[in-house]
Amino acid sequence: MICFNKVLNVFSCTLKMGSKLWGGRFVGDTDPIMEKFNASIAYDKRMWDADIRGSKAYAKALEKAKLVTAEEKDNILHGMDQIHDEWAKGVFEVKPGDEDIHTANERRLKELIGEPAGKLHTGRSRNDQVVTDMRLWLRDAISILKGNALQLITTMVERAAIDVLFPGYTHMQRAQPIRWSHWILSHAVALSRDVEQLQEINRRVNVLPLGSGAIAGTPFNIDREMLRQELAFDDISINSMDATGQRDFIAEFLFWASLCLTHLSKMAEDLMLYSTKEFSFLTLSDAYSTGSSLMPQKKNADSLELIRSKAGRVFGRCAGFLMTLKGLPSTYNKDLQEDKEAMFDCFDTVHAVLQVTTGVVSTLKINPSVMEAALSPDMLATDLAYYLVRKGVPFRDAHGISGKAVFLAESKSIPLNQLTVEDLRTASPLFSSDVSAVWDYSSSVEQYSAPGGTAKSSVAAQVEHMRTWLKKQVQ
Amino acid sequence: MICFNKVLNVFSCTLKMGSKLWGGRFVGDTDPIMEKFNASIAYDKRMWDADIRGSKAYAKALEKAKLVTAEEKDNILHGMDQIHDEWAKGVFEVKPGDEDIHTANERRLKELIGEPAGKLHTGRSRNDQVVTDMRLWLRDAISILKGNALQLITTMVERAAIDVLFPGYTHMQRAQPIRWSHWILSHAVALSRDVEQLQEINRRVNVLPLGSGAIAGTPFNIDREMLRQELAFDDISINSMDATGQRDFIAEFLFWASLCLTHLSKMAEDLMLYSTKEFSFLTLSDAYSTGSSLMPQKKNADSLELIRSKAGRVFGRCAGFLMTLKGLPSTYNKDLQEDKEAMFDCFDTVHAVLQVTTGVVSTLKINPSVMEAALSPDMLATDLAYYLVRKGVPFRDAHGISGKAVFLAESKSIPLNQLTVEDLRTASPLFSSDVSAVWDYSSSVEQYSAPGGTAKSSVAAQVEHMRTWLKKQVQ
Amino acid sequence: MICFNKVLNVFSCTLKMGSKLWGGRFVGDTDPIMEKFNASIAYDKRMWDADIRGSKAYAKALEKAKLVTAEEKDNILHGMDQIHDEWAKGVFEVKPGDEDIHTANERRLKELIGEPAGKLHTGRSRNDQVVTDMRLWLRDAISILKGNALQLITTMVERAAIDVLFPGYTHMQRAQPIRWSHWILSHAVALSRDVEQLQEINRRVNVLPLGSGAIAGTPFNIDREMLRQELAFDDISINSMDATGQRDFIAEFLFWASLCLTHLSKMAEDLMLYSTKEFSFLTLSDAYSTGSSLMPQKKNADSLELIRSKAGRVFGRCAGFLMTLKGLPSTYNKDLQEDKEAMFDCFDTVHAVLQVTTGVVSTLKINPSVMEAALSPDMLATDLAYYLVRKGVPFRDAHGISGKAVFLAESKSIPLNQLTVEDLRTASPLFSSDVSAVWDYSSSVEQYSAPGGTAKSSVAAQVEHMRTWLKKQVQ
Amino acid sequence: MICFNKVLNVFSCTLKMGSKLWGGRFVGDTDPIMEKFNASIAYDKRMWDADIRGSKAYAKALEKAKLVTAEEKDNILHGMDQIHDEWAKGVFEVKPGDEDIHTANERRLKELIGEPAGKLHTGRSRNDQVVTDMRLWLRDAISILKGNALQLITTMVERAAIDVLFPGYTHMQRAQPIRWSHWILSHAVALSRDVEQLQEINRRVNVLPLGSGAIAGTPFNIDREMLRQELAFDDISINSMDATGQRDFIAEFLFWASLCLTHLSKMAEDLMLYSTKEFSFLTLSDAYSTGSSLMPQKKNADSLELIRSKAGRVFGRCAGFLMTLKGLPSTYNKDLQEDKEAMFDCFDTVHAVLQVTTGVVSTLKINPSVMEAALSPDMLATDLAYYLVRKGVPFRDAHGISGKAVFLAESKSIPLNQLTVEDLRTASPLFSSDVSAVWDYSSSVEQYSAPGGTAKSSVAAQVEHMRTWLKKQVQ
Repeated sequence: MICFNKVLNVFSCTLKMGSKLWGGRFVGDTDPIMEKFNASIAYDKRMWDADIRGSKAYAKALEKAKLVTAEEKDNILHGMDQIHDEWAKGVFEVKPGDEDIHTANERRLKELIGEPAGKLHTGRSRNDQVVTDMRLWLRDAISILKGNALQLITTMVERAAIDVLFPGYTHMQRAQPIRWSHWILSHAVALSRDVEQLQEINRRVNVLPLGSGAIAGTPFNIDREMLRQELAFDDISINSMDATGQRDFIAEFLFWASLCLTHLSKMAEDLMLYSTKEFSFLTLSDAYSTGSSLMPQKKNADSLELIRSKAGRVFGRCAGFLMTLKGLPSTYNKDLQEDKEAMFDCFDTVHAVLQVTTGVVSTLKINPSVMEAALSPDMLATDLAYYLVRKGVPFRDAHGISGKAVFLAESKSIPLNQLTVEDLRTASPLFSSDVSAVWDYSSSVEQYSAPGGTAKSSVAAQVEHMRTWLKKQVQ
Repeated sequence: MICFNKVLNVFSCTLKMGSKLWGGRFVGDTDPIMEKFNASIAYDKRMWDADIRGSKAYAKALEKAKLVTAEEKDNILHGMDQIHDEWAKGVFEVKPGDEDIHTANERRLKELIGEPAGKLHTGRSRNDQVVTDMRLWLRDAISILKGNALQLITTMVERAAIDVLFPGYTHMQRAQPIRWSHWILSHAVALSRDVEQLQEINRRVNVLPLGSGAIAGTPFNIDREMLRQELAFDDISINSMDATGQRDFIAEFLFWASLCLTHLSKMAEDLMLYSTKEFSFLTLSDAYSTGSSLMPQKKNADSLELIRSKAGRVFGRCAGFLMTLKGLPSTYNKDLQEDKEAMFDCFDTVHAVLQVTTGVVSTLKINPSVMEAALSPDMLATDLAYYLVRKGVPFRDAHGISGKAVFLAESKSIPLNQLTVEDLRTASPLFSSDVSAVWDYSSSVEQYSAPGGTAKSSVAAQVEHMRTWLKKQVQ
Repeated sequence: MICFNKVLNVFSCTLKMGSKLWGGRFVGDTDPIMEKFNASIAYDKRMWDADIRGSKAYAKALEKAKLVTAEEKDNILHGMDQIHDEWAKGVFEVKPGDEDIHTANERRLKELIGEPAGKLHTGRSRNDQVVTDMRLWLRDAISILKGNALQLITTMVERAAIDVLFPGYTHMQRAQPIRWSHWILSHAVALSRDVEQLQEINRRVNVLPLGSGAIAGTPFNIDREMLRQELAFDDISINSMDATGQRDFIAEFLFWASLCLTHLSKMAEDLMLYSTKEFSFLTLSDAYSTGSSLMPQKKNADSLELIRSKAGRVFGRCAGFLMTLKGLPSTYNKDLQEDKEAMFDCFDTVHAVLQVTTGVVSTLKINPSVMEAALSPDMLATDLAYYLVRKGVPFRDAHGISGKAVFLAESKSIPLNQLTVEDLRTASPLFSSDVSAVWDYSSSVEQYSAPGGTAKSSVAAQVEHMRTWLKKQVQ
Repeated sequence: MICFNKVLNVFSCTLKMGSKLWGGRFVGDTDPIMEKFNASIAYDKRMWDADIRGSKAYAKALEKAKLVTAEEKDNILHGMDQIHDEWAKGVFEVKPGDEDIHTANERRLKELIGEPAGKLHTGRSRNDQVVTDMRLWLRDAISILKGNALQLITTMVERAAIDVLFPGYTHMQRAQPIRWSHWILSHAVALSRDVEQLQEINRRVNVLPLGSGAIAGTPFNIDREMLRQELAFDDISINSMDATGQRDFIAEFLFWASLCLTHLSKMAEDLMLYSTKEFSFLTLSDAYSTGSSLMPQKKNADSLELIRSKAGRVFGRCAGFLMTLKGLPSTYNKDLQEDKEAMFDCFDTVHAVLQVTTGVVSTLKINPSVMEAALSPDMLATDLAYYLVRKGVPFRDAHGISGKAVFLAESKSIPLNQLTVEDLRTASPLFSSDVSAVWDYSSSVEQYSAPGGTAKSSVAAQVEHMRTWLKKQVQ
């Protein structure tokens, strides 16, 4: 039989069941595979701290609503503190039946304090509890990621201090001379948008759903405003059905992670090109390179390849979650359980990628002499056209004349700047000896002094802009 | 031969080429398939107005930089106005060689005004031109979509006026009685988040990239601040490499469209359930239903199915574009050309879906008597537990006792509310005759009076909240 | 400061570094985050058995190529057997520096047998080793999944034995009466295509890449045909660069998983509808249902929701991996390391889903009386049209006449079959008393006796077809 | 007001409606936006020929079932032939109300032949009609794509005739010397898998669904076997509910397109690297390059960038369609209408990409001298290790010794092959003067003579393999 497997032995045992085909798998009244499939404790235990914080706040609200006494509340708080200690010390014991972190903590509370534990869930449902926990957890995670991103941007801005020219590429072909600092700032600017977007998302994360119950809301005069203050949320959810059934904040976070890592995949691709033997613009630190098991001479930029690859991974999480959401009816459906692993994995991935990228950027060595040697006169063909523009030639014509000069140099197999004035005059009579001033890379870049350009002053302004922005972020 | 095709005849002609396998397809020096593959005019002509606006502003900046005279500028502006008229009247003629809208408009300008047209591109590249056009176009599109969304939300809030109870579902199973208005508001609230997010995206869309050139920036003292004012952008792009090479605003828009339509797929799924024969909570207007080509009695909720399906379509665009971006090196690469069709298709789709949904929601008839008849006493099992909570039983125990009552009623095949007090006392001695007050759906929902709940006062507050919010949006 | 985190403390420590911003994180010459980021042992250790099998076969090839002696080969084989035992018993100790399963096993071999271990890698690279391991592992996994799928199909075919009529739905609206067995077979047929496709994929999985080295192939006359036989591969890879750099077989598998689970999401959605209170066609076993933490009466079809949701999860893996592949240059790049977690997760998920679905299907109880009661005369409107077709009316006209009858019944608020012959004659004079024969659900379904139809004979033929097909699969 | 738009004027007109908010848009009983949203004629008219073929076959089956007379059948066939001519000549007029190609053709048939047209739909539903049309269309499309792929593979195999060595890269770093022909074959081999997979998909496409009706099957003894023969399908669908409600063959095709274009994105990425100034291994034909609107010297490999980008586009279609399918209940739902645009777009895209790639590959010029000059002695470090292996050193040690030699050469700033024997002996005493034989690129590659390797004989065998395979494909 093709499908026999000695480890799992799944198929063969089924065929043995013979006439009693269905139901045969169960010895008791539950299917162990279903139980494992249903349980989330393996990953949602990571929210133990958020779950405890939420329950402590809820205990206070219960007291205010006179659903527990002051003493009962204190018992709950102390019990929860003890559970906190157990988790923090790594001694909390997950037991069979603890299908999720909420069940586990409540079960343990009952062991510790007895009956009042049974009051903690009054008017609360796992539907509003789980989404409260997730929002508390993600709020912290966003804060960490913001820190990681700011550290990376800071590093990039610092590394923009080096003033060296090298070829700017479009379509992976040499285009115009630019500053290295201009290049690194182009990536820093993209990341600063990521930080701003992350803060916008955080405003939608930081909304209290607790007090929404399973679907209809919460009875017993539970004071949601008090809960909001206890848990430091900015706002209270507007509608209980929406509050318990939506995971937009997760979807937004997953997409944010995808776009952020797409930015880093772009930078990684640039750096990978620049660190090929053929470009040799820069050398990666050994700390971020690895060797080959076969080829002794190899030094591979594994870190960059990993950074590049992770954009796919996190987008996969986003795609998977959106597809899970699509077509679901409203309110809580178990399908939403896909939210947590996606959230954790994207956090972990972006958290690692940002730090590794910071390490890569902060330790890479650039090779200024190779960079400058890679500048070639044909990269000034636009400047040659501008020379004519300054003499009154419409740009479209000047572009054509410069193109002819490029063609002429190519057919003579000489660099563009070695065409004589006579050569150039075959393309346009307006060329004269002052054309020699064109062939200066340093003065070429200084033309681009408008905001955003590659001139020294413009790049300095960009650095200043980023420094000011960074300062604002950490206030 | 398997692959022969009488229409396209592709493979057979190739095999005829015999010894001269490659190069054989071309009679001239271009490959017609490549030309078609490369051209974007078929779809980017849709940005004709944005392209003209951008060029007119740029002509003014050229005059200020003394690169064109006042007269030349006026000629350009008049020429552009004439081109505008041609497009608006539908008489603009796209000619061979017009590979994109920028080329087409510039070619036409030259026909109309001659030489000064050749100056319009001075210091400007298609790289900054195309992204300026897209931002202008998308800014308008976002404004339209915001209007569509507000119209839908307004409609929903109006339709929340109907006060009828019906079953709230979680896991597609009857959960607790809720208000119809509470249900419709749960979807309106989600859409209001979409509007807020759209405005955040718009802030990142509304940034001027013009004056970034191909990569290095713009020379000749082009006044970017003046361009910004002319084109009513909020900000100026910070770095020219980033400005020409990033399409984050497109990616963000595509994801926004995906999440927004995921919301509508959720509502459509609810409505589809509610309009099955089995639920019969509501009847779709004929305007949004279709018949069957085979079955005369059928009335299908095609509109809802289309709404549900479009979440997939737009997310596909988002996924495709993100995948195209992934791993690209920085600055402009031709791959970015995938941006426009995705943008147009997502706009068109969301634009249509929002309007159709507005039509569906505004014309559907609800069947209050069926809705109320669908409420059943078992949906008050939570209230039965709350009855005990009010008598001091911890909720966890009360939940268990109520569960026993449910089981007892099921085993007697009677509704939960027909258990006698004696029956109930087998589960707990705390039940007494006042338990009969539990079986009232109206008073049940009134318990949920905390913010976000389904009590009349709470729903009224939600309506008020949404009305205030709507007013703010259209100011 | 916003981004401070007491646990990870990441951002704050950075700011303290002051002037020495970059490089500051490393005390030694490696970055611990990079090391963790780079390592795959946490998940690829799951391939320990495949890795050992591959190495044992390779040792034999080395002996044949006279690169190791017979004694050395035996030492390697014995060492590998011992390592196998350690893994099987769960006592293999992963040590620092064991970045992947290949390194771990080779390191352990050296500890056990000394120098000959250093010869095992002769002419072999991790590039061909890892992909050999994956193909061995996936071949086994496919075999298990095939078994799971066949078990599910077998269960479904068995459950097709019940003969009961119920409404067939299109567009979620009642369409025509069909057999329950016809419905269940429609899903079984889809799964049988999955099995066939899985076997096609397996043919592309079961190809030996070993002997491809890092990129250029293998020197030293390593006998690849011997390796193929040892490891029971069907074929040998054709080109070493393709062999080491492609992961098509993974991409195909991930998509297979996605399409297979999309099939199960479809069936789950049907079952979820049928198990709502409103439909009440079937009752899920308690083993596959769960309760609510708040609402005592709830019985949720969690199993079905989980099944439905997993289609998103696995497709996310597929999307993520394709995005990772896109734009990569050829041959091995570290980005490919994303292959393994995706493979494992999709296997585990499909493995669980198939088994849970088998459990659900085998234990669900259908409610024949409710099903039959849901049939309504309007579902025979097509039959009413056919009645006229048999009397010579073109179908298009007959469809219109039947539609009029439906409208008439609706306006009279009576079922379609209670229209009198006189009523019907207002729509067409061809109606006579024999029309009463139309209103028989059993004879209606018997019309559909062509292959694939819902007539008893046709469904029996489908069952027979599936049984024959199943027998062929396990031979 | 923010959202006013002068062109579409959508939002403003709504606000004017005042008290009659909903329903206000409709003057008649249909919503024009809904009609447009619902209609598919704009794109599904492309299946006109398939629709006509299907209807002609069905007319014959109707005659056999005595539902039309021989004369009526002939009228239908003649009418359909005339419609065919109208479409072929481009004069078929789509009229208002023609919501799809099926309606349009039937409407036209009625105009041409009158009443018998009304009989054509007897026992047929659009549900089985549309999927029959799609299968006929896709079968032809697959045949064309197979032809395109074979042409590309043929071109690649021909271009493998050039025998030149150049650096093989892994991790984008120089690894070992390989043959250019080995590189090009690595991509051809991947494409040959695509062709094989396409044929497998075609077997699942080429199955007749006609005769499945809307859901229950077909009555009236329609002979499905006769339909199968008429339309040259290989098989008949097994179950009518599955036949009308599944679009697996579309999903498979979309994924096939994604994987195929991922292969071409990989080759395009290689070619793009090789055609940078820095690598300069090859020069793209002008027919596949474009210039810059700003920079006169630029020659961009636009064709390669477009090829690379399209993998994203088609995968987006696949992702979108899978997401649309996910969670749908079984049988036909209008959501499935997303199938056609995805199918057409993926066909068009792959069709163009394959042809453009064939053009690119057939016209590119390689620069053998640059390629060979790029080989460097450090790429023979593995050979240096093999030298020691041949003297009995375990590979793992030899790898380490060779690594030391590489380090020594680097520290002396000399190429690896310029280390003296004395230098080498500091790493191992086994080095002697015969080590000089290592530094020969030609003999290095000849070591890799096992199947799949880069030795001349091995590459020749690969070429032969591919030629034999190609011959088999076109038989």
